[in-house]
Amino acid sequence: MKKSMGAKTLLYPTPVLVVGSYDAEGRPNAMTAAWGGIACSRPPCITVSLRAATASHGNITARKAFTVSLPDRSQAAQADYFGLVSGHNVDKFAATGLTPVAAEFVDAPFIAEFPLVLECELVQVHELGLHTQFIGEVKDVKIEERCLDAEGPLDIRRLDPIACALGDATAGYYALGELLGGAYSIGKPLIADADS
Amino acid sequence: MKKSMGAKTLLYPTPVLVVGSYDAEGRPNAMTAAWGGIACSRPPCITVSLRAATASHGNITARKAFTVSLPDRSQAAQADYFGLVSGHNVDKFAATGLTPVAAEFVDAPFIAEFPLVLECELVQVHELGLHTQFIGEVKDVKIEERCLDAEGPLDIRRLDPIACALGDATAGYYALGELLGGAYSIGKPLIADADS
Repeated sequence: MKKSMGAKTLLYPTPVLVVGSYDAEGRPNAMTAAWGGIACSRPPCITVSLRAATASHGNITARKAFTVSLPDRSQAAQADYFGLVSGHNVDKFAATGLTPVAAEFVDAPFIAEFPLVLECELVQVHELGLHTQFIGEVKDVKIEERCLDAEGPLDIRRLDPIACALGDATAGYYALGELLGGAYSIGKPLIADADS
Repeated sequence: MKKSMGAKTLLYPTPVLVVGSYDAEGRPNAMTAAWGGIACSRPPCITVSLRAATASHGNITARKAFTVSLPDRSQAAQADYFGLVSGHNVDKFAATGLTPVAAEFVDAPFIAEFPLVLECELVQVHELGLHTQFIGEVKDVKIEERCLDAEGPLDIRRLDPIACALGDATAGYYALGELLGGAYSIGKPLIADADS
């Protein structure tokens, strides 16, 4: 039996996106956004949604670029901190001891210690209400070599990304658990069933 | 040491969004989208990105509505199947034995057996390239009562949502693992550090 929860953004899990940008004086900032994700395969595009009140919103609007750094399990507290305080008031890199590095292809900084980084050029901006959606075309992805397996592809266990649950749920960060099956794979027996 | 992976959509984890829509004759369809997420808190908006070749793309464009049904751990194979075959060719509900139910607030069907459903009215459409991004305003969320805890909020462990990893990684579906800490909480000691 289903119960109505009203009109809310209850969707699980979400990725934890630490968004890097420079201000007008070239000072690096980073903030954690829970709203965003992948939006297009070709060209590769991702989105982050930010409130106009944030320092990052102004930075990205002016510089037309941002990065997304993905924390691993050991960096959940630092990622949470990046979402708790405003870059208007604090130098978050100084407070956390993390290192801003200039991206190679876009005008924004990423977090050196985080294992996966997407460098994005701003391509579209959409006003949705409280949040503005920034769409970035991914110009490059950088990953710690220790997160690659012997054959080269990214090993999700070595990356050890974290997922988030907000909204009406107990708000928390989660590790990835058990592998349930392969994508484009575990559903194939149902095709055979349908054909028979 | 970081290695460049090129311009790709490597972002983890992503939610598993089973998108429901009606065709011109009112036949229900559902397809699994890995690209999408939350986009705005007020009004509550989510996104799904679909290729123009999909039946769902045409359905949503015509009907201005869609639902997103979230599978749990036991439904990963069914969710995978909904992404493997096209609604142009197959009645996916008949093949899986799942039940389409008309949404209460929008002109689209949801999957009765899946534990969490978002009913969405189409509010914006953005062409990004291979994928079109559909932005839906959430008109209602419905959840199985067994997924609520005694006090009413959603219990993530009872919901048991699945996460996805695609791209250069070994493509798979994952359960949620260990709770690492509370959101807006585990980062607070870093504020104290910065103030001291």
